[in-house]
Amino acid sequence: MPIKLSELAQKINCRLHGEDCLVENVADINHAGSGDLVFISNAQYKAALSSTGASAVICREEWLDNSSLPALLTEDPRLAFAKAAALLNPVIADFKGVDPTAVISREAHIDESASLDANVVIKAGAIIGANTFIGVGTVIGENVRIGERTQLNANVTVYSNCIIGNDCILRSGVVIGADGFGFVRDGNTYFKVPQLGCVRVGNDVEIGANTTIDRGALLDTLIGDGVKLDNLIQIGHNVEIGEHTVISACSSIGGTVKIGKFCLIGGNVGVRDNIQIVDNVMITARTFVTGSIEKSGSYSSSTPMDETKNWRKNTVRFRKLDEMFRRLVSLEKKLSASDDD
Amino acid sequence: MPIKLSELAQKINCRLHGEDCLVENVADINHAGSGDLVFISNAQYKAALSSTGASAVICREEWLDNSSLPALLTEDPRLAFAKAAALLNPVIADFKGVDPTAVISREAHIDESASLDANVVIKAGAIIGANTFIGVGTVIGENVRIGERTQLNANVTVYSNCIIGNDCILRSGVVIGADGFGFVRDGNTYFKVPQLGCVRVGNDVEIGANTTIDRGALLDTLIGDGVKLDNLIQIGHNVEIGEHTVISACSSIGGTVKIGKFCLIGGNVGVRDNIQIVDNVMITARTFVTGSIEKSGSYSSSTPMDETKNWRKNTVRFRKLDEMFRRLVSLEKKLSASDDD
Amino acid sequence: MPIKLSELAQKINCRLHGEDCLVENVADINHAGSGDLVFISNAQYKAALSSTGASAVICREEWLDNSSLPALLTEDPRLAFAKAAALLNPVIADFKGVDPTAVISREAHIDESASLDANVVIKAGAIIGANTFIGVGTVIGENVRIGERTQLNANVTVYSNCIIGNDCILRSGVVIGADGFGFVRDGNTYFKVPQLGCVRVGNDVEIGANTTIDRGALLDTLIGDGVKLDNLIQIGHNVEIGEHTVISACSSIGGTVKIGKFCLIGGNVGVRDNIQIVDNVMITARTFVTGSIEKSGSYSSSTPMDETKNWRKNTVRFRKLDEMFRRLVSLEKKLSASDDD
Repeated sequence: MPIKLSELAQKINCRLHGEDCLVENVADINHAGSGDLVFISNAQYKAALSSTGASAVICREEWLDNSSLPALLTEDPRLAFAKAAALLNPVIADFKGVDPTAVISREAHIDESASLDANVVIKAGAIIGANTFIGVGTVIGENVRIGERTQLNANVTVYSNCIIGNDCILRSGVVIGADGFGFVRDGNTYFKVPQLGCVRVGNDVEIGANTTIDRGALLDTLIGDGVKLDNLIQIGHNVEIGEHTVISACSSIGGTVKIGKFCLIGGNVGVRDNIQIVDNVMITARTFVTGSIEKSGSYSSSTPMDETKNWRKNTVRFRKLDEMFRRLVSLEKKLSASDDD
Repeated sequence: MPIKLSELAQKINCRLHGEDCLVENVADINHAGSGDLVFISNAQYKAALSSTGASAVICREEWLDNSSLPALLTEDPRLAFAKAAALLNPVIADFKGVDPTAVISREAHIDESASLDANVVIKAGAIIGANTFIGVGTVIGENVRIGERTQLNANVTVYSNCIIGNDCILRSGVVIGADGFGFVRDGNTYFKVPQLGCVRVGNDVEIGANTTIDRGALLDTLIGDGVKLDNLIQIGHNVEIGEHTVISACSSIGGTVKIGKFCLIGGNVGVRDNIQIVDNVMITARTFVTGSIEKSGSYSSSTPMDETKNWRKNTVRFRKLDEMFRRLVSLEKKLSASDDD
Repeated sequence: MPIKLSELAQKINCRLHGEDCLVENVADINHAGSGDLVFISNAQYKAALSSTGASAVICREEWLDNSSLPALLTEDPRLAFAKAAALLNPVIADFKGVDPTAVISREAHIDESASLDANVVIKAGAIIGANTFIGVGTVIGENVRIGERTQLNANVTVYSNCIIGNDCILRSGVVIGADGFGFVRDGNTYFKVPQLGCVRVGNDVEIGANTTIDRGALLDTLIGDGVKLDNLIQIGHNVEIGEHTVISACSSIGGTVKIGKFCLIGGNVGVRDNIQIVDNVMITARTFVTGSIEKSGSYSSSTPMDETKNWRKNTVRFRKLDEMFRRLVSLEKKLSASDDD
């Protein structure tokens, strides 16, 4: 349903510039047509304003130049556009109610406004809150508690006793509460350490596809409010992640790691067991965190890409770094000695 | 069913050498017995020709030496062997028809030659092509379109509106079309950017177990014809992968990355967001691609393994690399100055 | 049910020190209350003995100092505590019997003591041993053989012909026996190499959530007795892992790799195809194993984390390593020549 630009301006806190018009949806600026609302997030894209087929744009005032395109002006076009996109594309559940194939324990407590799609299985003692949606084939273990308005997509597994808050989204393939990885050597074999804690996920948390969060050994694994986890992430047992921390895909967080609030952790970062990281830390992609971080700031550890033939020459010298250092020091001494002559 | 070597030669485009015989299956050269066909792909393995129990071998003519083993001769024994293996082991579906436990929307369009195994769920508007097979517990979202002769193995999830071509294979645990990872900071929280695009997978694509491919934000994520993806790979939103590109296990491709055709990407490679890579690029295993690649060739960035005690000495010097460089330059200056004296 | 400390001492092979008492469960030393048994694994934690609310502690005799807390003494408190935890928390299946929604081939052989939870699917020819538990939505392919007392958690997939031993635990999302990643270039496309082997998992093996183990091409992929695999690990086709080897999360083992017994492989380790690693090798987290390891010992290859601004300066020099080495050698020559003057 189309909406007037002036009306949208109010809802997403922008200022209308130029003529009012109807917009129907959001689009990419280079693929937009009539009825589309687009955005530019950077002055370098302002040239596209003259060529786009869109009906309106969200941008900063100073990028308009002489464009006569109807515009919604804001200091943060990216945020305003995201809000416009959400308004124009309300999430509509493709399923409401309880599918007859769902297998629900009589001892589970399902709010009557919750939806359970086909082949969902809910075990005894589980509690499912109001307006929560459980997708196809998802398994909710014994005594699991899930809050309100939370969406579990298809084929998610939540092990017994875990707790998930309100307004969360768990993508397909997520596994919450599998045993942490704990073994003690016992002669010529390993003895499994019972994993007796659970996983507690706060409110407004998003967990990406095939990400795994292990249950704690004695205490619980804790995921704070507002945390966003991308796909294929591993969170070890007894990890604590502070509120509003964001972790990109394929990262792995070792056991008993404590990460602060509002951290930004890039893709494929590894954090060793037992590390502590304070609030407001940024860790760039591919970094391996080998020690605790006690000061907010940005941290890194990858090595630069090169053509293979160059890289090969340089990388073999890596094994000589210490020798090179010593030879350098020795040269310095020699030279300073000869200076003294 | 056994086949004459002479007949097989015709089918896989080889030249028969020595006596004709019957072969029943393929085998490893060191574990082969009567009726087995084996191959050697490298001159260094030709000694095995005299000890193998196999009935026949696929190899190059020059590796035969004085062997009297019946042989199929070709310049590409590996390819010929793969073709022989496929001929002798035709894929037989372990399920045909529609299992009574499948949950199929009345508004889905299922070709009558398609097979739906137990607990499959197909949502409204989905289209399943001829001779396509959907494995146990696999979930097909609303309006998904799947072509002909495609196999989705057990426990796959395809989100709404995604498109999968003909002759594809998706392994268990694959998740296609989960939301891309997009958030905008909004004061003291993050606002989720709606992910409105879909995933379009071409023809003849293979996707490995537990691999995830996110849907696009505004435009679509595109996987070209003939692309082969190994297990546990992450493909971010709006990625474009060109035809016949091959990516090994555990690699992660950031958002809005564009990869060309016929690239070979090794295992555990990471590609940062917004990178562009041209056609015919090889990226060796473990490389972190931090910049666009504009020239075909081979690229790398890992560091060499060493005994931990040596590595520890060298790795600490990494933090001194810039200092070492400066001290080296300073020595050079000093020495050249003293030369000038 | 509470147990006397003296009785527990006998069962877990400890010596009682101080007064006998009842303990009911294990707990973290800083969160323990009455009835709780705790442990300390390191002298540095012995101060907690005076402040804990626990009823008893497991520790070494020399850490007791003047503590009057009832204690179980042993040289290996971690192991004794794990055994106590297991005794006090026996694993109780949350499901017994065969759920009516399970889809079981008439040609499968299910031991009458085995349990099959909701929506389990068992294909023809499969054999499920005594007291084995198959979790919700798990799929057992044709002719799969699973031993006794093995637990497959929810949403696991085992492809046809694979073999799993006794006393194993497979966590949710595990995929056993998907095709290995094998293709041969065939003109302008790739020809898929049939993957005709299977996966054979020994006894007492634990496999973490969303881990994938590919089937072999001609021979089988072999996982030895007592092997422990963490979450999100990739095991390529034809890999052999020796008994009691432990691999942490997010590691990837390339095709045809052979790893010995009692190896300890850290998180996010990569092992290139065709590598051989002997027994008793430790590989530290994040290492990329680029060559075979012929001597037991510890091996590494990561680079150290630094503040991004320092790291940036150092990492650019990585591309100059070979040049630096040559310039260093040239300085040495110059200096030694001038010494000769």
